[in-house]
Formats: sequence, C-alpha cells, structure tokens
Amino acid sequence: MQVKQLGEQALLKRLQRYCPATVVGDDAALLSVAVGYQLVVTTDMLIDGIHFSDRTTSATDAGWRAAAANLSDLAAMGAEPLGITVGLSLPGELEVDWLDGMYQGMVDCLQPFNTPILGGDICRSSVTAIAITALGQVRSEQAIRRSAAQAGDAVVVTGAHGASRAGLELLLHPEQGQGLTEADRALLIRAHQRPQPRLDAVQTLRALGSRSAGMDSSDGLADAVLQLCRASQVGAQLERNLIPFPPSLTAWISEAQAIDWALYGGEDFELVLCLPRDAAGRLVEQLGAGAAIVGSITASPDVLLRDQSGLYPEQPLSLNQGFQHF
Amino acid sequence: MQVKQLGEQALLKRLQRYCPATVVGDDAALLSVAVGYQLVVTTDMLIDGIHFSDRTTSATDAGWRAAAANLSDLAAMGAEPLGITVGLSLPGELEVDWLDGMYQGMVDCLQPFNTPILGGDICRSSVTAIAITALGQVRSEQAIRRSAAQAGDAVVVTGAHGASRAGLELLLHPEQGQGLTEADRALLIRAHQRPQPRLDAVQTLRALGSRSAGMDSSDGLADAVLQLCRASQVGAQLERNLIPFPPSLTAWISEAQAIDWALYGGEDFELVLCLPRDAAGRLVEQLGAGAAIVGSITASPDVLLRDQSGLYPEQPLSLNQGFQHF
Repeated sequence: MQVKQLGEQALLKRLQRYCPATVVGDDAALLSVAVGYQLVVTTDMLIDGIHFSDRTTSATDAGWRAAAANLSDLAAMGAEPLGITVGLSLPGELEVDWLDGMYQGMVDCLQPFNTPILGGDICRSSVTAIAITALGQVRSEQAIRRSAAQAGDAVVVTGAHGASRAGLELLLHPEQGQGLTEADRALLIRAHQRPQPRLDAVQTLRALGSRSAGMDSSDGLADAVLQLCRASQVGAQLERNLIPFPPSLTAWISEAQAIDWALYGGEDFELVLCLPRDAAGRLVEQLGAGAAIVGSITASPDVLLRDQSGLYPEQPLSLNQGFQHF
Repeated sequence: MQVKQLGEQALLKRLQRYCPATVVGDDAALLSVAVGYQLVVTTDMLIDGIHFSDRTTSATDAGWRAAAANLSDLAAMGAEPLGITVGLSLPGELEVDWLDGMYQGMVDCLQPFNTPILGGDICRSSVTAIAITALGQVRSEQAIRRSAAQAGDAVVVTGAHGASRAGLELLLHPEQGQGLTEADRALLIRAHQRPQPRLDAVQTLRALGSRSAGMDSSDGLADAVLQLCRASQVGAQLERNLIPFPPSLTAWISEAQAIDWALYGGEDFELVLCLPRDAAGRLVEQLGAGAAIVGSITASPDVLLRDQSGLYPEQPLSLNQGFQHF
C-alpha cells in the first residue's frame, strides 16, 4: 500500500503508534528539563539519495542512522537524550511499509536510551527527506564544548575509525574485499548501517571528572580535529601509527588507504575528545575496544599528521577531503 | 550567485550571521528553561511548491510564514518562545539571495518576540524544504491543551478568519476582487504573506486566569473546532452569523463564500479557545479587532454549524473540506 492510498489522517494515526500516547495530540509536545540542567538542541536533515539510498540502506537502517546521528550530536555535547521530533516529507507513492520500517529503525536505536519520539510533521514532496531535532539535557558545567581544548591536551578517539566507509564500499561494490572473512565483512557493513552513538563514553568521561573539549566524528576524524582546533584556537599533531582502524581492513586494502578512510571517511560517530594526558590515559583504558590517544594539542595553529616511521612526510590535515554537501 | 558556487563552508558562515554568536559553533545549541516551566516543542516542514511558491511568496515571506507557523503552535500551547532550529535542504542552483531573504524573513518575524535562531542543518536536495523546530516554555499549569474543553464553554476566535485564503486567491488570480479598494486588497494579501502569531492573545488570556482549552487555526477554523471536540470528547454548535471574516470580502464574494473561506481556508493562524462564558466575554472585549464568541461546546458529540436566520439548514462541520496533504 502507498502513502497516498492511506490518506493523511490514517497516516498520522499510524505513525503516532511510535510515540508515547501522553506526548502527542496537541499543537506541540510538553516535556521537562531537570533543575540545574541546560537544554541541548540539535537538528539534522537526511535526504533520500544523499544520506541514504535503497542500494545501501533498508528502511529500518535509514531510521536507525537518522536517530543515531542525532543522539551522537547529543553525546558530543555531553548530554543525555530527552526525545526527538521527526519532520518528514515524502512522495505519495512511497510504500507505507517503508515508513513503518523507518520508524521502527528509529525506535530500535532510541529504545536503549529510553528516548521517545515526541511527534513531528509530515507532508508531501517529490523527495523523501527526514528532519530530526534531538533534545537533551546536560548540567551546565558538564557540557562538552569544541572551544575548550588546550595546548598539551591529549587527543582521544572513543573507537576505531574507517569502518563505516569500508562498509559503504562493500555495500556499493560487493565484489570488493575478497580477503575478508564473512564475519569481518558483516561487522564492517553493520558499522555503516547501525552506528552506535557513544552516550556510554559520555558517562565514562563524566565519572573521570576531567575538563574536556570534544565533538563527534560524523564528518570524519580529520574534520573533527580541525574543527576543535579552529574553535579552540590551537593546533594538533596526530600520529599516523596511533590512529585506530579495524584490523581486518589490512586483509583488503593498504594501511595507507585504511588510514585515509579513518581520517576522511566519516560517519563513524565516535567522539573526539581533548583532555589532560593523565585523564586521557584513564579514559582510553576504561573504554577499551579501539579507544586510543591519537596525538596531542599544540599551541602552534598547524594541524599535522606525523609519521614516526619516517615513511611518509609530515602533512597538514585538510578539510577539503571530507564530504562536501555543495 | 548560486549556492553551489558559494560552497558549504562559506554558506554555513553566511547563515550563522542570522544566529546569536553565543549559541552556534558546537554540535548542538545550549539554552535554559526557567525553573517551574515545561519545555514545549513543535516541528513543521514546508516544501517549495506546496507551502510556498515563487508565484505567491517572496523569499522573505516564505521565511516569515515558516517562523510564524511555528510561533503560532507555541502560542496554541500557551507558551512563550525560546528559539527555533532550521533544517534546510535545497538545490545547488538556488540563488544565495533567496536564502538570505528567507533567513531575513524568519528574523523579521522572530525579532519582536526576542526569539533567536539556534542553528540547524543544511544539505543538498532537488527540492527546497524548510524544517523548523520551535522551542518554548510554559508553566505546567498554564499549558493550553486540546483536551480540556467542557460542555457549556464558549468557543472564542482571537480574530477574523478567511483573510489568508482571500489573499492567496488575489495572488493567484490578480484579476479577481475588482470591487475591493487597493487598501483592502493589500490587507488581504498581507494576511496571507505575513500572518501574525497570536502570542499577544496568550498573555491576555493568562491575565484572565481562566481555565481554557485551545489550538491554532492553521488548518482552518472548522478543523480546529473538530480537533478540539475530538480531543475533549465533546461537541460544538457554531453560529454562522457570529463567524468573523474581513468585512471587505462582501465587496467581492458572497457571504456564504466568505464563511466557507473562514471555516475551511486555513492559515489564518488565530487561536481557537474554549473557556467559561464569562471569561470568554472579557477575553473578546480585551482582544478587540475581530475576536468573537462563535458558538459553544456541547455534551452531545456533534459538531454543527447553525444558522439563526433560517436561510441555511443546520450542517455538520467536515474535516474533509480542509487541506489534505495526501
């Protein structure tokens, strides 16, 4: 059945099943922010054919990724999630099954964090677009800002990078990656389809009680470091040999290619944090699995990738190799 | 100049001029909700060719209307605005001037209410779509819900209806409305292009201290009354002769047509409120200019339009004459 056969009223009623009954049915949703907390708000827009496509993304995966990207932005601020709103535009010819799958994917991603869909809006368009606004809360003094990095800080990543880019490549070109085991192949594809927002890492960080700056690596690790340095008016040196990528990648591509994907591939949705070296060491130890110190913040404004082996020349990281929307 | 010639980084920098410097530059915006208040959240999606078009809507008007529609939803909840986020998808060929105009229109509408743009997201698509999420705050006990109407309540509209529909008609068919003065024509067109969210009426209502139910009439007066009755499990009787429409309309169309536009035209963005008759009388008196008691809430579930003159038979109001997205 297509959306236009269902009609608007029936469509709204169907989608409201995915929202708590207590929050829908008015012109706006009401919710509470705890005393002493600030509200955190972030908006993402996802477009069919650009952020997801039938070739690589099922309806449930599209929903999961949309929700995960927004929860990741909340994690990047050190916030705990309160809920999301969903604005949808879609063609009348869209299958209702697709829409159900998309909402189910969102709910699957949100549920472990007890995060409700607070309502939204739906309208007709020739292109499917999903606009999500995520709301969270954070104690004012615990908000993680981009502008708080200091020279001498260690740069920490909460997990390996490049897996999402590798998974996308395998989805687009299934003939690739012959050297991978089936299990490794499935893990890489899952990293692309079902990224995990690192709200858990926020709790680990908070328990350390350390000052920190940070953001997520949705646009790539290199982009995150460059943005952090720009906002904090500092520079950074990353060490090529410290950048964690899935070890299985070397059964498929060169190490240089793997590091390129780790730096510029994007959509890994890990956190990139700058904090004093002692605290950084403890954080990496507690996070385990792919978390690593990848370099340090410098007073000089350059953002450089170094190679201790001497095989590669020192090179500046570049914003232009990341994904450009226009 | 086109958006794709400007590039993403320059585009973001350009649009950030419309946001307070203190709230942008991180993965999410931070803001405060006052103690004792609940957060109010509403999302609207507007699509080029459906909610606005070059034929009827300049870039500034498109921006104004998008902001106004969302502020109206906050007013409908009895809330005061805190800020909006803007998700934008647009073709690379869009003129940067259009985008500037759209943001200026939003700011023009928001400024009298000291409401900032808190950031958002921008991406490429074949269709221009604007997704706005508005945030507001309201004291829990002062939230205006749809479900609180009681039999015996008066039904109040905060202003005349049908002007937006008339203005749209004049924009689409400039040869129409020969009987109108230039001033009246301009007022009707302005009602369509620059609707005023009734946050002022919320303050008037609050000062009365009366219990009330309500919503806005963005989808038409008839739709609002039907939704209120459905949510409150009551009915209503509206009096045809009490429904306020711009008096100038009778120099152009029949009274029956004017009332049809008032009931089903939509986008007048007035509030439709249900409250005890005494308080309703005082509210209408204080609001002036087009505000009126248009009927009353009944225990019987029917929603009827009556005609005291006897010219028209009693008829049920219908949801299906309003705008359907699918």
